[in-house]
Parts: sequence; structure tokens; C-alpha cells
Amino acid sequence: MTTSYDVIIVGGGVIGSSIAFHLAKKKRKVLLVEKDRIGCEASSAAAGMLGAQAEITEAGPLYDMAQKSRNLFPDIAEELKECSGIDIHLVNKGLLKVASSEEEENELKRLISFYQKQGQRAEWLSVEEMLEKEPNLSRDLTGAVYLPDDGHVLAPELTSAFARAASILGVSLREYTTTTGVIIQNDRIIGIETNVGNFYSNMVVVTSGVWSGTLLQQTGLHLPLYPVKGECFSLLYPAAPITATVISEGCYIVPKQRGRLIVGATMGEGQYDKKVTLKGIRDLLTKTETILPNIVEGEWEKAWTGLRPQTPDGLPYMGKHPEIEGLFIAAGHFRNGILLSPITGQWMTELIEGERHEETLQPFRVDRFSKTMITR
Amino acid sequence: MTTSYDVIIVGGGVIGSSIAFHLAKKKRKVLLVEKDRIGCEASSAAAGMLGAQAEITEAGPLYDMAQKSRNLFPDIAEELKECSGIDIHLVNKGLLKVASSEEEENELKRLISFYQKQGQRAEWLSVEEMLEKEPNLSRDLTGAVYLPDDGHVLAPELTSAFARAASILGVSLREYTTTTGVIIQNDRIIGIETNVGNFYSNMVVVTSGVWSGTLLQQTGLHLPLYPVKGECFSLLYPAAPITATVISEGCYIVPKQRGRLIVGATMGEGQYDKKVTLKGIRDLLTKTETILPNIVEGEWEKAWTGLRPQTPDGLPYMGKHPEIEGLFIAAGHFRNGILLSPITGQWMTELIEGERHEETLQPFRVDRFSKTMITR
Amino acid sequence: MTTSYDVIIVGGGVIGSSIAFHLAKKKRKVLLVEKDRIGCEASSAAAGMLGAQAEITEAGPLYDMAQKSRNLFPDIAEELKECSGIDIHLVNKGLLKVASSEEEENELKRLISFYQKQGQRAEWLSVEEMLEKEPNLSRDLTGAVYLPDDGHVLAPELTSAFARAASILGVSLREYTTTTGVIIQNDRIIGIETNVGNFYSNMVVVTSGVWSGTLLQQTGLHLPLYPVKGECFSLLYPAAPITATVISEGCYIVPKQRGRLIVGATMGEGQYDKKVTLKGIRDLLTKTETILPNIVEGEWEKAWTGLRPQTPDGLPYMGKHPEIEGLFIAAGHFRNGILLSPITGQWMTELIEGERHEETLQPFRVDRFSKTMITR
Amino acid sequence: MTTSYDVIIVGGGVIGSSIAFHLAKKKRKVLLVEKDRIGCEASSAAAGMLGAQAEITEAGPLYDMAQKSRNLFPDIAEELKECSGIDIHLVNKGLLKVASSEEEENELKRLISFYQKQGQRAEWLSVEEMLEKEPNLSRDLTGAVYLPDDGHVLAPELTSAFARAASILGVSLREYTTTTGVIIQNDRIIGIETNVGNFYSNMVVVTSGVWSGTLLQQTGLHLPLYPVKGECFSLLYPAAPITATVISEGCYIVPKQRGRLIVGATMGEGQYDKKVTLKGIRDLLTKTETILPNIVEGEWEKAWTGLRPQTPDGLPYMGKHPEIEGLFIAAGHFRNGILLSPITGQWMTELIEGERHEETLQPFRVDRFSKTMITR
Repeated sequence: MTTSYDVIIVGGGVIGSSIAFHLAKKKRKVLLVEKDRIGCEASSAAAGMLGAQAEITEAGPLYDMAQKSRNLFPDIAEELKECSGIDIHLVNKGLLKVASSEEEENELKRLISFYQKQGQRAEWLSVEEMLEKEPNLSRDLTGAVYLPDDGHVLAPELTSAFARAASILGVSLREYTTTTGVIIQNDRIIGIETNVGNFYSNMVVVTSGVWSGTLLQQTGLHLPLYPVKGECFSLLYPAAPITATVISEGCYIVPKQRGRLIVGATMGEGQYDKKVTLKGIRDLLTKTETILPNIVEGEWEKAWTGLRPQTPDGLPYMGKHPEIEGLFIAAGHFRNGILLSPITGQWMTELIEGERHEETLQPFRVDRFSKTMITR
Repeated sequence: MTTSYDVIIVGGGVIGSSIAFHLAKKKRKVLLVEKDRIGCEASSAAAGMLGAQAEITEAGPLYDMAQKSRNLFPDIAEELKECSGIDIHLVNKGLLKVASSEEEENELKRLISFYQKQGQRAEWLSVEEMLEKEPNLSRDLTGAVYLPDDGHVLAPELTSAFARAASILGVSLREYTTTTGVIIQNDRIIGIETNVGNFYSNMVVVTSGVWSGTLLQQTGLHLPLYPVKGECFSLLYPAAPITATVISEGCYIVPKQRGRLIVGATMGEGQYDKKVTLKGIRDLLTKTETILPNIVEGEWEKAWTGLRPQTPDGLPYMGKHPEIEGLFIAAGHFRNGILLSPITGQWMTELIEGERHEETLQPFRVDRFSKTMITR
Repeated sequence: MTTSYDVIIVGGGVIGSSIAFHLAKKKRKVLLVEKDRIGCEASSAAAGMLGAQAEITEAGPLYDMAQKSRNLFPDIAEELKECSGIDIHLVNKGLLKVASSEEEENELKRLISFYQKQGQRAEWLSVEEMLEKEPNLSRDLTGAVYLPDDGHVLAPELTSAFARAASILGVSLREYTTTTGVIIQNDRIIGIETNVGNFYSNMVVVTSGVWSGTLLQQTGLHLPLYPVKGECFSLLYPAAPITATVISEGCYIVPKQRGRLIVGATMGEGQYDKKVTLKGIRDLLTKTETILPNIVEGEWEKAWTGLRPQTPDGLPYMGKHPEIEGLFIAAGHFRNGILLSPITGQWMTELIEGERHEETLQPFRVDRFSKTMITR
Repeated sequence: MTTSYDVIIVGGGVIGSSIAFHLAKKKRKVLLVEKDRIGCEASSAAAGMLGAQAEITEAGPLYDMAQKSRNLFPDIAEELKECSGIDIHLVNKGLLKVASSEEEENELKRLISFYQKQGQRAEWLSVEEMLEKEPNLSRDLTGAVYLPDDGHVLAPELTSAFARAASILGVSLREYTTTTGVIIQNDRIIGIETNVGNFYSNMVVVTSGVWSGTLLQQTGLHLPLYPVKGECFSLLYPAAPITATVISEGCYIVPKQRGRLIVGATMGEGQYDKKVTLKGIRDLLTKTETILPNIVEGEWEKAWTGLRPQTPDGLPYMGKHPEIEGLFIAAGHFRNGILLSPITGQWMTELIEGERHEETLQPFRVDRFSKTMITR
């Protein structure tokens, strides 16, 4: 007789690892399967920005979710450090969103009122104030919004810490295991098929990022997801030319430990390849040089890409499969997987445990683009 | 209306690339799709031995196939160099199969009669003759078979040369494209589904190595394939301590250009992971040090693994799907994919072109383990 | 007129960087020159053991120095984190020195009395007690000394943190600058010659590890130093098989973050090359497998070497040049450069500042092997 | 008694390795010492252009030398392949020097008359002719000079082949050996001092590139040499967008095997560091994109630097030391070390063997900037 698990999670990125960690804290017997290595895709490619305000600039369910998740980071950082020994390097030096034209300035000022209405901190800095804060920024900018509460973490460390903490709490990790299908009996999930055999459980969570849709096709669910390739590079300085994260239309610059800057990210819609192109480097270079002229003094470290999983309406999928009992989905977090991972782990665990009503996740329901399911 | 191809090949390893090249020479409009990069799996991990005699030690269809394929190498090396500009570094310095006990010696001497009966060259070397040829081998060995006709090539270069030559002759290469299903209409193949959309063709060849079985499950074909993980490492010397390839029970040592030795390979049955273990290194080290004591003077370069696709009877699959018209399969070449790639490319092309009767590939038929198909 | 410095330090390893940091705290204007990159030699190759007891097993000036330096680590870790933002990952889980024979056991038990006489903690563990603490150690061992106060840090991070903190406090760092000579006038140092020109200062500290002797030949000082090449490798585990550092005759195993073990180190006396040999890997493997049998389950990460600067009597050189005023030397810390770096930085700074009498460093005097100097 | 050599060569770059190879063919007992690894500096960083015409655009001793050296390549490629087994990938597809303004066009046309007067082939291509040859070049260029006889090789392979062939012919190679001084007795060289002891010979050749001057200071010779840092990067294409080498004011693009382009090189005068800067990448990118717009489609492979040894008048040093008998120098080949290595190896060997009068190397004499020597 083969082992059976309380929950099987398919996909060892930051989302799957966070859910595994949160379920483990509830004493659940969990199996986490990953086709390659833990965190080897988008989760490790990320710059680790916690841009709860910077990235989500409209009221709505994603905005609320992002604020809540950002607020969980101080505690989660401490908890993960204690349990896994890994420091996720949470930095809270704020974020500057810069303007290079009057139009952008007006747009940013409009945003400030929005933030303030939401009860969030946000402050307009004139060019002088901005340069006082970050003296290496370009004098040709027209000012910036300062968001003191948007920080950043080390993305590969975060994923690794969730997975290692989960493992220490008893979760079984299986790397290099490709899930090829789900096993369904009488409209109930009973397990998964993989390249190394079947695993059984009455609850399965699909957290396979952009690859989630393909796995779920078999269940009749239309779950549209497409990759947005992001090219990034990193630079080294004796002392980093900025202290806060700086973002602008189309690029961000995140200062990390030891004088390292991460610069990202291009937006290659529908591209599944992981090639860094010279074009990508040029586009990032051109944009960032306008903002931070002496960025070019930096020493080249390396370049890489990540495939961020996007959905048609920009909202992640989080919820139950409409027809198969015991089948859950959490995918499509696009550029905000790092930021949203704590709250996703928490909410999905509550949903699985029956402690949260699925109505509370209504905007994220997984069948919102699946006509068959809706008309059923 | 979307483009249609004469033939679609699923899997850009050495087998798929060779078929693409051979079809291109017939002016076929071919699409080669590969889930990651060309040659990124077993094809690049190989040491490139052309052990037609060394590896296949019994009469039978595989033995004949291997001899024929080995004989194609001088011409194919020249043709690929001319067409792609890539030198596959064909080396014809022979191979020594060494014995460390009377039992192994008797077994090897029996092999010599077998080779000679097959009309192949093979010669017994006493310890003194062996040491004259390769003075660094251990004096504790009891002798060796010398196979002057077994050579080696650079495996990554061979795959790359097939693919590049195919591309130059007009084949479309699509890397980073995962094939998720085959499209069948009235028992006829009409195309494939991938993560970037569908592609159409009335002929599809599956050359996905150990991953081929999973793709074909959908067609009802039981095509058993399992991985045998092989760990290898390479060493550097001012001058390589051997000039011929040396193999023994459980390991091989292949001398490459610039004083490099490749040492392989462990046999991890059923292991899908690509981790090199300290145990693997230790096992290879222990075996090779017995044969070539001063191998330990070498400078460590690197270690890697490959997943070799094995079948229950050790023969590759080559042929037509028993029920779906237009669907072809070439997979399961185990440790001999490099050696067998030229003849596989040639034979599969002939089969696809209708120039070869499938009866000639009878021992390799793809439904030999598929009861359903057989009882049909 | 060219800039002049209060102090020039020649050599950007952990010793030079620590001195730079300590001088910077005294508001000195310091130039640190390094021929390649900061910490690129022995300082980064180290496993970071703080083996104040484990490594120094006799009473004497080195023993006292080591205990004092180890005791500085908690404060220095905090200070460096605050100033440079870099976490040196100080771990205080103790160290086990294991015995595999009655002879080794007796020797270790003798050591315990020695440690206790010195007022240091040390405890004998029977095999059962040892296995309770570290269940994966071999049952064939005969027991172990437990040293609860010997910890470890990340060696590259420590060097980097000293240098970065120094830089933040105003020290000028010049990498890729080779010092080719010292400039002397009337038996007084006035500067250094480098490949990019001269730099001037009335105080110069040579901290060039094994390369220090060559630079000082010009001054008539015979400062014997020779390299001891140490080969190391690292392994990855889902969970590390040990929690404390384990050392034995001829090898050590240090557990780092994220399931990583560092295994070291061979002792290649007089070897200046940085080649990892298969022999080195084999020797470490054989030794460690005896102690920790399942070490072989680990995944291979990488191998490297470092050149540790040794002196004829095993004591580092720390002090003033006997004839040239203003010329100081701190080199030859062998396997204990990481451990000894805080106290060396402190003592050398005090010596330079005139706050410490050179008599206190008598055992480390730099002319102890220089007959000419002594007889002068 | 220690071994003595016929000749000791100090510096294992392409120049030292070529001299070692040529001396070995004369049956000389040679020791080649190298501070790190053979070819680890400028020799491996080079793009391998054989720009005998493209790089040297004035009549004079360097021009003649370059033509002669280029003509040696077909034979040397064959000889090295046979002796060392290494293919240096000599490619003879010519070189295009493009013009982007009328001024540049006039200058290039003037060059054509010069080449033709020298008896060299050179041809003006109108924009249309240029685009017919290389359809991906920019239509905004005004034309190009076509130099059919300027080819390229793989620079690391060339150095490696010289050294390995030398080793096979009996030369002793000592890597990781730093030469700290020359040993002189009665105005005669008798050996060298290194970090691993002394080596003796009555003939020593210094071939240490930009580091040669420092070593020779001790002999009173002023041999001005300074580094010119060159940053380069490489790109990968399914098919390279050019077939000939393309050069322009300030950059070159060299097409290598397997769809790789090498782009170089910046000119950082006096810079000894090996850091690739974002500025360097930007400058090359901007220049090359003007010439070859779709270069940006390429996949980023990697970036690197080399330190090219320059002299005040742009001519290398080749000859005898003016005062120390038995001491020879060959250094300062700037951007043309690869191109000039065969003839340098040949001429220096003839000089050492007494088969060539030093008057024939008059323009390259080593004391031309050393007033003391001249006035002696």
C-alpha cells in the first residue's frame, strides 16, 4: 500500500513553498513536488521588490491583498530566520517612483491622493528634495513620489526559506518530479501521476505558475495564463549609488547588499524562452541611464530572465476547482509573486482547512474565464 | 491559415537533430521543436564514445545497426563540417577493454572470437603489450582487448552540428517549446499542441528520449522507458595519461583534446534528478584508480549527469505507431544515442519517405510491450 | 603634489582589511592596495572555522591570542552588520573533535585536561553521547571532545565586511594595484611603488600573506613564508547530516546555511598552484567517509583551493621592521587568518598608534629568522 | 646540483609560447614559467583577428612584420594541429572596414591606394556591393573596404596549441610560478628567481606583456609599457548575421563558429583592473548597432576584458638587453599579439640562435626609450 498525503502541492515556486509552510504549521502531512529544483523559475529571477503601492495603483482586491501581504513580512522574516536559519534580508528603506515629464508628474501626484485616501503613506518630493535623498539621480527628472513602506527582500532566499522551513516541519519535498496528470474518481481528486509514479491524496493544490493551465486542461478547466519574460541584470559598485529602490515607467533599480544593484525588467509577452537578448540589455540601459546617469560606472555582474505568469485581467487565480472536489489552484501572480506569497500561503491554507469561505476569494476565482464551467 | 509542415519532430536531442538533418537533405519542410535548448539533455552529457564493439557484445539487430552507424562517421563528420562549419572531432585511436581478473580475461577472449566471427577487428593484448601501448595502465590488470575501430567524437558538437546543418538546409528550429499533446483526427495525426500554440503536419516524429512515453500515453500506446542517470566528471592533464579510450566493468575513460579526460558513468536506474552525488564521484574514482593509478594526478574540471533513456529489452524504439497514421517514434537509445544517431537519422528518413519497409525495423517496433496494440 | 596617507596597507585579505577597519575607526586616512580583488586569495577560500581550541592545542602566545580573538567575534559581527550591512553568519554550535583509535582518544583526553587548565570548556563524549548529539557520525569512532565555544563564520563575508566597513568609514580601496617596491629614504619608509605609480605615507603595513616575503627582500629582511595549498569541496543536502563542526586528524566538516557542508582541507606544502586535484578530492573523501558515512549522499557543489601562508615556527609575523622606520608587517596566519583577524586588526592598530609597546608582540617579531638583522 | 636550461622564457602568453615552440623545434632545452595559467591574460581575451591590413595602416616595420606573420598562419595552423591535436580554427573570409561618413570614406579610399602600392589586395565596395556581401549591415553606411586576406583564429586555442606543442617537443612548463627577479653575474644573466626557487640558464627571454617593465627595472632598463584595457562581449545567433569580420572606428565584430559573434573592444588606457563596466558595454553596443542594426537580436553570452600591453611609439620591443648578456625581451605587441606571434617566435628564435643579426630588429630595439642605456 502506498503512502497517502493530506495535501499534495504541485509546483515548488514561492507560492507552492509558502502554502507548504503554512500547511505544515497546521500539522498537515504534505508532499511538495517540483519538476526541477525548488525556486528555479520565476521565484529566483525576481528582484524581490515588495511594491505593494508602487506596483498596484488602483483600488480593488489586488490592492488590499498586496497591502496585507506586505504587512506580514516583518513577522514572516523573523519566523523563517528562526525556523530555517535563512535570512531573507528584508530591507525597509522605501521606494521612489520618479517622473521625467509633467505628464508623469501629474499622474504621480494623482497617485498620492489615491494612496492617502487608502490610508497609506506617500509623499511628493521636488527635484531638490529627491536629490537630497538620492543625490545620484538625474537633475532632468521632475520629482518623485516617495513610498516609505515599500521594501524588498532577497527572492531566492525567500523561496528557499519557505521550502526549508516546510521541510523542517515535516513536509516531503520531491524535486525533479514532473506531474503529468491528475487522478480523478467520481469528480473527486485522488492523486497525481508523475514521471516517477503516482502519489495519492484527497487534496491537491496546483501552484505551477505559467505551466498550471496545461496541467488542468485535462479537467476541462480553461485557465488562461501566459508568460511575460523579464530580462534583468546586476551591477556591482564600491558603494551603491542609491539607497532606496527607484522605479520609473518600464524599469526598476533595487539596491542590494554589498554594493549590488539589480536592474529590471523587460516585458516579453508570450515568450517562453529564457534567453537574455542584447536588445533587452540595451532597453534597460537606456531607460535607467536617463534616471541614474552614473549607473554606467557599475561593474557588470550577470544577466538573467524569469517567466512571470500573467492572466487576462491581471488578477491571480486562487480558489477551488469548480467541478473537481479537493482540487485547488493558486497561480498567475505575475510580477508580484514574492510580495503576495505570505498572504497566498495563509489564505489558501485557510481555504483548504475549511476556515475560510471561498466567497472571500471571489475576485480570484479560477473559473472566471471558463465558459463551460460558468454555464454548467 | 497557419503554416503546415511536411514533418514535425518533437525533441531536439541528437536523434531528433539527425532526423531533421536527413529529412532536410530530402528537401522536406521540417519543424523541430525542443522544450529547452537543442541538445541540452543526455546528448550533451555523453562522452561521445563510438563503442560499436565495446558496448554491444552480442549478435543481434543492435550489433548490426551499431557497426553500420559507426561506419557512417567519417563521411558524416566531413559533411557536417562542410555544411555547418562545426568539427565533431572524430578520433580513431581505438579502444581498450581491460581485464582485472582471470574471469574477466576469459570473458574478453570469448568476445574476441565473437568479434572475429562477425568480421570485426579485435586483438588480445598481454599485460606487456597493453603497457607498451598505454604505459600508465595498472600492472595489476591481466590484459586487454584492443578494438582498433571504436573511436569517439565530441557529443555536444555532434548534436549542435546536426541541428545547425539542418537549420542551414531550411529546417525551422523552435527551442523553449513544450509539446503537451498530439492532435489526432480519424486515427490520423494532424499536428501537435504546445505551450505556444498548435503546429500542423501529417507526419510527426517523437524523439523525446525518456520523456517520449508520457507524450504517447494519450494515444493508448504503452511505450516503457526509464531513465538511467549517469554521473561523469572530467580532468585536465599537461599531457593525457592515455591515448586510446579505456573501458572496464562499470566505467570508461575517454581522452579528449588538450589533455582532457572524461570519466563516466554511474548507472542510476529510475533516477530523474540531475544531481551529481559524492557517492557517484567516489564510485568512479575507485574503479578508475584500479585501472589507471595516476589518474588521481589530474586536475578537477567539473562533474555532470545525463539521463539515458532505457527500454526493457535494451533495444531502441524505431518505427510507426501501430494505430495512428503519420505518427513515428525514435527513442530509447540508452548509452548509444551518439553512436546510433547517423543510422537512426537515415533509417527513419527512409521510413518516412516510404523508401524503407517497416518490416526491416521489426526488432525495434514500438508496440512490442503494448499488449492492447498487439491483441488488436 | 600627490596625496599622502596616514597609513598605506599592502594586501587586501582579511588581515589587511581588518587593520584598515580598525585604523579607520581611529580616524586615520588609510589607503588599502590589493593586487587583484579584495579577499580573492586565502581569505575567501577558508571554511571560516573559529577553532581557537580545536586548532591550537598547546599553551603559548598563539593560544592566548586565539582565545582573545574568538571572544571578539560576537561584538565584531554586530558592529560589521551595522556598519556594512553584511551579516558574517556567526554560528555558535560548537565543534566535535573525533577519535578513531584508542591512541587518538588518549590524545584528546589529554587535551581536555589542558583546555580545562586554561579555563576553557571542553567535554569528553562517549560514542553513545556523541551519537546522541550527531546521530550520523560513524559508530566505529571511539568518542569525541566537544568544544562548545568554537564556532564559525562565512569567511568571504567577513573579509568583505571589514573592507566595506573600512570604505564606508573613509578608507580608500585600490584593487588591481600591484605593489612592486617600497620607497625608503634615510632608513624611513616614505611610500610604495605600484604598477599605477607611487603612493606616499610615513607608515606602511605589509599584509600580503605568502607574498609578503618577496616584497620585503628589498629591505634586507629575511621573512620566510611558504604556501600550504588546501583543497576543499562543498556538498548540498536537503538537511545537513551534522549540526556542529566535526574535525578529525587531517580534515574538517563545517555545516553552513541551507544544508551546505564545507569539507577541507588538504595540506600541499610549498605548492603555489591553485589546481584542485582528483587526489585531493579522494583523500578528503576517504577521511570524511570514515567519520560520517552518509556524507556520500551529498550533492556535489564545487571544489576550490586556497594558499595558506605558513612560517617556520607556525607563529604569524606581527610587528615593526627592525631597521626601516614606519614599516610594519602582519602576515603568516596560516590556517587561522579568519579566527585571528579581529585581534590582529586591533593589536596592529594599537602598535601603529603608539598605544601598544612592541615588546607585547615579542613572540611574533618579524626578524626572528633574519640573522643579518639580529647580528647587526 | 640543480638542472640548467638552454633558455628560460618568462611569461606564458601567446608570445612566450610561440618562442618556446620555435626553440623546441631547434631541440633547445627550454623552461617556460608563467605566474598563473598559460594564456590566462590578454592572449585569451583576444578576438583572434588577423588584421594585418586592417590594424596597421601605415608603411613601416610593423606593417611588413604583420604581413609576413599573417602569411605564416596557414602553415602554422596545420603544424600545430598535427603536433598538438588542437585546431586553431583559421578562417579566411576576409574583413570589411566600413565607413559611416564621407570623411571616413575618403580616408578608407586613401588606404586602398596605400594597400595596393604595398602589393596587397583591397577593394572598395559601394553600399550596394557591401550589402550584397553582408545584407545585414546598415544602409546608412557609405561603403566599405574589403580586405580579402585578413582572417581570424581562435586566440585561446592558438596560445594553448603553441604551449602544448612545445610541451610535446620537450619544453618544461611551470604554471603558477612568479618570477621575482633575474640573477646577474658580471653583466651576464645566469638565471631567475621565483617564488618556488631559482632556475638557471645563460639565456632568458622576458615575454611578460605589460608586466615586463617591472621585472626589468632591476637591470636599469627603462622599458615603458602600459595597459590598454579592452572590454568585449559575445552574442549567440541561430545563424550569425555576418560572415566576414566587420570593423569600424572604435569597434570590431568577429563571426565565430556556431553562430557566435565577438564584439570588442574598448580602450581603457592605463587601466589595470579587469572589470567589465556597463559603460563599456554601452559604448560597444551604441557603435555596433549603428553598423549592424539587428545585432541587438543576439542572445547575450558573456563579457570579459584583456589588458593589452602598449608602448609609447606603438611598436613592440624585440631584441637583446643593451647591457646584460643573454637577456632577451619580446613584449608590447598591443592589439596584435595574436597576429604577430608566429613571426615573433621565429625571429626571436633566430636571434637567440645567432642566426639573425640584431640590426634587422633595429626599429624594435628595447633600449629606445632608455636614455641611460643609450648614452652609456
